[in-house]
Amino acid sequence: MSKYAIGLDYGTNSVRALVADISTGREAGSHVWPYKHGDHGVILDPRQPDLARQHPRDYLQGLEQSVRGALAQAKKTRGFSAADVIGIGVDTTGSTPLPVDAQGEPLAFSKKFRKNPAALAWLWKDHTGHAEAAEITAQAKQHKPEYLAKCGGTYSAEWFWSKILHCKKEAPAVFAAAGTWVEIADWIPAVLTGTTHPRQLRRGICAAGHKAMFHPAWGGYPAADFLRRLDPALARVRQSLPDTACSIADAVGRLTPAWARRLGLPAGLPVAAGAFDAHLGSVGAGIEPGVLVKTIGTSTCDLAVAPLSQSLPDIPGLCGIVPESVLPGYYGLEAGQSAVGDIFNWFVNRIQPGGPSRGSHATLTRAAEKLRPGASGLLALDWHNGNRTILVDQRLTGLLLGLTLQTTPAEIYRALIEATAFGARVIVERLEQYGVQIERVVNCGGISVKNPLVMQIYADVLNRPLEISRSTQTCALGAAMAGAVAAGGHATFAQAARAMTGVLAKRFRTNARSAVVYARLYALYQRLHDTLGTRTGSGNQFTLMKDLLNIRDEALHGRR
Amino acid sequence: MSKYAIGLDYGTNSVRALVADISTGREAGSHVWPYKHGDHGVILDPRQPDLARQHPRDYLQGLEQSVRGALAQAKKTRGFSAADVIGIGVDTTGSTPLPVDAQGEPLAFSKKFRKNPAALAWLWKDHTGHAEAAEITAQAKQHKPEYLAKCGGTYSAEWFWSKILHCKKEAPAVFAAAGTWVEIADWIPAVLTGTTHPRQLRRGICAAGHKAMFHPAWGGYPAADFLRRLDPALARVRQSLPDTACSIADAVGRLTPAWARRLGLPAGLPVAAGAFDAHLGSVGAGIEPGVLVKTIGTSTCDLAVAPLSQSLPDIPGLCGIVPESVLPGYYGLEAGQSAVGDIFNWFVNRIQPGGPSRGSHATLTRAAEKLRPGASGLLALDWHNGNRTILVDQRLTGLLLGLTLQTTPAEIYRALIEATAFGARVIVERLEQYGVQIERVVNCGGISVKNPLVMQIYADVLNRPLEISRSTQTCALGAAMAGAVAAGGHATFAQAARAMTGVLAKRFRTNARSAVVYARLYALYQRLHDTLGTRTGSGNQFTLMKDLLNIRDEALHGRR
Repeated sequence: MSKYAIGLDYGTNSVRALVADISTGREAGSHVWPYKHGDHGVILDPRQPDLARQHPRDYLQGLEQSVRGALAQAKKTRGFSAADVIGIGVDTTGSTPLPVDAQGEPLAFSKKFRKNPAALAWLWKDHTGHAEAAEITAQAKQHKPEYLAKCGGTYSAEWFWSKILHCKKEAPAVFAAAGTWVEIADWIPAVLTGTTHPRQLRRGICAAGHKAMFHPAWGGYPAADFLRRLDPALARVRQSLPDTACSIADAVGRLTPAWARRLGLPAGLPVAAGAFDAHLGSVGAGIEPGVLVKTIGTSTCDLAVAPLSQSLPDIPGLCGIVPESVLPGYYGLEAGQSAVGDIFNWFVNRIQPGGPSRGSHATLTRAAEKLRPGASGLLALDWHNGNRTILVDQRLTGLLLGLTLQTTPAEIYRALIEATAFGARVIVERLEQYGVQIERVVNCGGISVKNPLVMQIYADVLNRPLEISRSTQTCALGAAMAGAVAAGGHATFAQAARAMTGVLAKRFRTNARSAVVYARLYALYQRLHDTLGTRTGSGNQFTLMKDLLNIRDEALHGRR
Repeated sequence: MSKYAIGLDYGTNSVRALVADISTGREAGSHVWPYKHGDHGVILDPRQPDLARQHPRDYLQGLEQSVRGALAQAKKTRGFSAADVIGIGVDTTGSTPLPVDAQGEPLAFSKKFRKNPAALAWLWKDHTGHAEAAEITAQAKQHKPEYLAKCGGTYSAEWFWSKILHCKKEAPAVFAAAGTWVEIADWIPAVLTGTTHPRQLRRGICAAGHKAMFHPAWGGYPAADFLRRLDPALARVRQSLPDTACSIADAVGRLTPAWARRLGLPAGLPVAAGAFDAHLGSVGAGIEPGVLVKTIGTSTCDLAVAPLSQSLPDIPGLCGIVPESVLPGYYGLEAGQSAVGDIFNWFVNRIQPGGPSRGSHATLTRAAEKLRPGASGLLALDWHNGNRTILVDQRLTGLLLGLTLQTTPAEIYRALIEATAFGARVIVERLEQYGVQIERVVNCGGISVKNPLVMQIYADVLNRPLEISRSTQTCALGAAMAGAVAAGGHATFAQAARAMTGVLAKRFRTNARSAVVYARLYALYQRLHDTLGTRTGSGNQFTLMKDLLNIRDEALHGRR
């Protein structure tokens, strides 16, 4: 009789539950529940383009609805019973910290803060803390350079401490009321196991290590002294955090009877520590040393692993090198692009509102497929949401160059795809420069299966063949694998991967002629990239995009 | 009893005839005839984005139809009779040279070249001769720097000799069959007066001086020796050209009986020498020393005049400083932007095909009006059709910087308007730096009357009040004024201007707060402008746009 594990995948716009057969990886059932608040789950503020929040109510309602839906579907499988489920794993977006009160209850649920956006979950792509990120970076450069060495040399506005420090400044009442801050990757497993009280809450190494400067080498989270220098009040937040963090091999607890009833599952099931979607996605795609897993969706996350025994240098610009953040026994190496599918969606939905017949992804893709590499004369920078790797700089913006009076929407669409491919190549080259071997590239995420044009351009720009994960739900599958391992259904993740993961027979091979043209365009991309994105580039154009954003922010909010 | 003059205005897409009362400037009748060939009169080739041609048949058919239409309308005026018309003036686009045979007949009318695009008129915005422009510039720099000094230091792909030299290389049969090449500004008056034979053809100083390196100082057109160095065959073209050129005060002849019948006018009417649309437009807007006249349409032409007695330095980047090219007795100073309305049209018609309700100029303008200066965070370069002044470089392209996932079409639309305003400011600053005083700015052309948002942004960016010409047809009015002066209806252009021109009471005043923001944005525009458009800018990014265009051209045509 088959055994099953449930993977919960909290994305930007919805949550998915997946019931996976632990001996084959086959999906017995799955269900997606779109969030109800804001714009497809993202609460925005037109006066603050940097703001992006989520309501924790969506997380809980989605938990119940998605699991019940997935189980209902699985029950159509002959012989399946909820009693065959042995464990649960969870992945989420991040860094998405949520302020909770002294009892562990989200402040957003309290009457007092019901209408305060600072009490919501601060979604990964919220960039309101960019000034604080710069402060943290400066402080760490001076006093704790080792904190930065593991996260690429720059602390990001997207991350844990930037958001908390920004809350302290912009919404002090929310900050004062928070008993602690918890990544939703840690909060969901805590909810399921009844361990949300700040003293009980267990933190995963994935979120802590990649986003909160946690490292075993200095005893966990940053020292209270360091945080105090940023703001004396931060020391209190540090006090609310534990000194250890767990990997996805660990169970944080067992499913409470209350949640077991709500979900229709046996009480007492082991629940694995949570991790970020891309990290568990790479697990679901079969990550191992030598394999780069690219999760290509609204944004992109690139992951590789290297044995803990390998002596690995710090790699400038990488979002993180964190022991056991992906797999136990390995360093997790994380890179990423702040926007990929989001850029294509922006163009289609905002700039090209020509309706389904004229400006859809399908129409534009068909027209863009007919274009030859280089023939548009366009070159774009894929920085519409800043640059996560290797520049680690949210104060960068997108650019389109080479426009003429003949430029067409399809040409722009293709140029935007190419820009993200060039951005992807920057990451691969950086990893290789620092000794991380990449023998295979396995892709997953919506775009990798839905848009062959994107994948072909990536194969041509990266100049290497690309494989596609067999599962279209690698994140949820990886979460289910964590549930299976936490429950002892597999002894190791390597064993789970052999049983539950694989790639499609179809792979994308490089077109040699395209690769030649793209190599030339990539050289121009690098020039623009370095000129506008680095201080080392020739010229003094590094401040250009920042000056423009400063003017924008003053126009919107008045001079600060 | 009133007297009238006819102004013929040959634009990019249509020809207009205007019947103007010479004592008031009042329009008694006017008629527009849209060209029939190509895309709104412009013959394009999708494989050669630089190509733009026109069929001379459109010019002749439009001549008859527009004059007849204008006269028919004028006849509704009490007491008007065609016998009250005393003269005709002509303005056209340019440099738009046309190859004609040894008898002066356009090669496009011959059976042999009927299908050869090289036999058509080479429209001003045709850029196929960019390589030849570079050759001519290099040759002149070495051997005849004085030739360049009067046209901004760089010979343009849009101009006479670049086009002819390109024809020699790309279409040698057409080149060999050409008895001479004639600007359509000269050809139309020649047609009307029966003087199209190459030996009779009179050339206007406006086209010759601004586009063909004609200057009295070196005896007219460039020396045969100079041309021979570019290509021995060019000496033959030089031989077909006269050594003198006339101003708009001169009549080139009298209306032939045949054309008098076709048009319904008295035979023998004086026909003034032709000039470019913007030049006669500035006359129709009342140009005089201290006044900058901006004609803002698909592209922009800026004109100023300075007394011949003033010792004027060469002004780098100006399209031309030509004695009597605008008014007799004055230097004509010409600058311009290669695309203005064309950029707005490109965005609305090509990129935003959302239909009239969503993406029209009106909708975008309404939305863009609500935006505050600087609030979009966008900055654009208005080089979609190259840069005429002050860079004189067709191998430049448009750029959009500051894009985010929140960027809207209205923000882009406004940023494109602002970019053209910054481009306009570059020109004003260059003129003033070199001692040309600008006390008033008078605007004419479609955009100046149709789009108050554009004018307000220009007033804020230029930081000075803007006036609008009373006439909406300044080009045709200026042409009619030339007809009136050539016929002796006014003794001087100053007298004609007092009688026939004026500005609207409504002027656009600078908003001081906007001006402050725009001054900061302009500084950023200048940085981008210098970085990507000049060798003197910091960094080595001058070749970036050119490298990209080279890759494009190879992708489209194969490596040359």
